[in-house]
Amino acid sequence: MKQGNIRRAFSYFESGAVLLVTSSDGKRDNVMTISWQMVLDFSPRIAIATGEWNESFRTILETGECCLCVPSFDMVETVVGVGTMHGSQGDKFGRFELVRSKAMKVRAPLIPDCLAALECRLEDYVEDHGILIFKGLLLWENAGKKDRRVIHANGDGTFFADGEFRDLRREMRDRLPEGLE
Amino acid sequence: MKQGNIRRAFSYFESGAVLLVTSSDGKRDNVMTISWQMVLDFSPRIAIATGEWNESFRTILETGECCLCVPSFDMVETVVGVGTMHGSQGDKFGRFELVRSKAMKVRAPLIPDCLAALECRLEDYVEDHGILIFKGLLLWENAGKKDRRVIHANGDGTFFADGEFRDLRREMRDRLPEGLE
Repeated sequence: MKQGNIRRAFSYFESGAVLLVTSSDGKRDNVMTISWQMVLDFSPRIAIATGEWNESFRTILETGECCLCVPSFDMVETVVGVGTMHGSQGDKFGRFELVRSKAMKVRAPLIPDCLAALECRLEDYVEDHGILIFKGLLLWENAGKKDRRVIHANGDGTFFADGEFRDLRREMRDRLPEGLE
Repeated sequence: MKQGNIRRAFSYFESGAVLLVTSSDGKRDNVMTISWQMVLDFSPRIAIATGEWNESFRTILETGECCLCVPSFDMVETVVGVGTMHGSQGDKFGRFELVRSKAMKVRAPLIPDCLAALECRLEDYVEDHGILIFKGLLLWENAGKKDRRVIHANGDGTFFADGEFRDLRREMRDRLPEGLE
């Protein structure tokens, strides 16, 4: 993975990609699957919805950090495996042979097999609604990844990959943020 | 459109579908395009990120209601047209020949050409982060719609339709909410 333009980071999340969210308490790394996520602004700020049922939730609250990693569709079995195993059941990185690497600004690891990873600082916890608000600090991109389709969860155990592509950049020209190239 | 099972409603949103969000102040209907949205729970509660730059935002705050409509990929040009026209520039329903119909529990109209529409009550406004929290009241489904692919925005003026499908319901059996059938 190579460092990418932080202004382009939101575009990895806006389409509704399922995420692998990593955290670390300094002794042990953890990872969870999250499909309840949305972009809040282009800086980027990203929100996820989670709660006490995820072991990672407590670690992220305490450390104020995570990495939001964007897996490709060829990783969907791993993503489901991570999503159905609780942190208390053992080491998910070992169980699913997930390679990790060191991030630069946070202790949470990167997953370099993903399409992208965003090192994040926790900005706020909206407790009433179980929403964590992250500010993206540093973007990593994996230009060498062959399968570039993200995973979309339907919530019922079925998934779609990105399919037909449509370019409407000309029609949206006046409404796009700068710095996307 | 026919009424559907509200327990299945979240599944229309979880994959990151671009939405047409309707509102009405009693005199005039309005519609905006939103791709910054996430599921908060299965009841369902849905969050969207928006703000003063959308005319619909003020109407939704004042009326406490909207419909979240899920367009299919064959509507992507209309969705982009709605998203790039401001409410102050005229009637978007007329301009884009968007048919609307009456909802049951809210004054905001349904868009019956969409795959689904969720009548919603505004539950909260998280002002610090520009997040509106909606509670879904009533689900409408359009079983007759041929193009069943939702629209995913990449944020740069390009879009993907739902593509390759993967069924991992067996693997996720223990983690799925009841009532999805």
